[in-house]
Order: sequence, then structure tokens, then C-alpha cells
Amino acid sequence: MSSRSEWAFFLNCKVLRCLRKVDKLMIDSSCLTWEGQQYQGKTAIVDKLKSLPFSKIAHNITAQDHQPTPDCCILSMVVGQLRADDDPIMGFHQSFLLKNINDAWVCTNDMFRLAIHNFG
Amino acid sequence: MSSRSEWAFFLNCKVLRCLRKVDKLMIDSSCLTWEGQQYQGKTAIVDKLKSLPFSKIAHNITAQDHQPTPDCCILSMVVGQLRADDDPIMGFHQSFLLKNINDAWVCTNDMFRLAIHNFG
Repeated sequence: MSSRSEWAFFLNCKVLRCLRKVDKLMIDSSCLTWEGQQYQGKTAIVDKLKSLPFSKIAHNITAQDHQPTPDCCILSMVVGQLRADDDPIMGFHQSFLLKNINDAWVCTNDMFRLAIHNFG
Repeated sequence: MSSRSEWAFFLNCKVLRCLRKVDKLMIDSSCLTWEGQQYQGKTAIVDKLKSLPFSKIAHNITAQDHQPTPDCCILSMVVGQLRADDDPIMGFHQSFLLKNINDAWVCTNDMFRLAIHNFG
């Protein structure tokens, strides 16, 4: 995964609750912090995403940064905007860590926050 | 480092260009992405922070999330607001990875973005 579209697809899958994809990306030690709430393991994370109270969502990526880490992971920070159902557009930020295990990329860590409380 | 005040101090040191502290936290393989620009190594990172065009800065942390990673690092995502000199208040987001090497915590990865382009 390296191109802009692939990263967008990764994010898209998650935000859109493309749960089969999330199920493949997460492992039992994966951590998700969603708006300050912590979930660990594939099952808990998929259950949380299933429970999100909207039926459709659109998003745009404003900026994305990626770095290799000393332990051969990829750290990413994504900033963007989303619209859930007919709610107002909201900013969001997400950071996640990808690790290659047995020739497959998995997401070991994921943090998501809406930007609704961060205006000057 | 675990308490809210210590994390705030860590962030504060960096944003305030407390360069002696940054000098200790960064190592030669550390990566900084600052508003999309990439810097690698302690010297390049300190030089970048020295070059920032303001004389004083204040900040507030809106939200902070921290997770352990599989490789015994700590991944953090911080969202907040800052004011440089007399400029308008701006939102920012920062993600960084801390690793314990020889009984000292170092920052191996750091990403910083202002939130100025991320409104609905």
C-alpha cells in the first residue's frame, strides 16, 4: 500500500464500515481508540464499527503523512472531513500503525477523533 | 512519562522549541514530518524547530490518546490549539512514537499539522 488512492481506500474501508476488510486488517492484539474509548482485538473493534449510528458516510482527505518506524512498521496520520448521513461536515484525524506480519499488512494501532471540539 | 502534565510538558517542550529537550528526545534515525515537509535526524529536526518564525507560543491540549504498540513503543495522538505570537488561534494535531532504548525514552517518529485547512 503506497499510493494516495490505496491509502484513501484503506481509510474509506474503515470509515465506511467495510467490515470484511477491517476484519482482515485487525488482529487480536490490535488497539482502537475511538473518541477516547478503547477497544482491543478484532472482535471488539468490528463490533464497535458495526454499532456506529449512521447509514452512509462520505469523506475527503485533507492531508496525509506516512513514515517508516524503526521496527519496520508504517506510521500514518490522516486529516480530513466527513459527513455522516445528513449531519454537518466535520473534521477528523486518525493515526494508525501498520505492520507486516507473515507477508500481510495488519493494523496494530488505530486512533480516531472528530475535530468538533478543536476550533479557535 | 505517563501523566497528563508530563505529556503536556513533552509537547510544550517541542512546540516551545525547548531545544535541549528535543535534542535529548531525538536520535539520528528520528523522523519529523512538519506540515508535509520531512526531516530526518536530530540535527535536521533541531535546525527546523530553530527556524520556526515566531518568538512565543501558547497551547492547549484538547484531546490526547496513547496506546502501547507490539514493539514496546508508545503511540500518541494529540489534538489541540496554539497561538504563535499575536496570530489567530489555530488547531493542530500531532502524532508521535516513543521508544525505550537503553533505559531512555526517545522519539523515533513525529508528525505535525496545523488544522487551518480542515474546516467544513
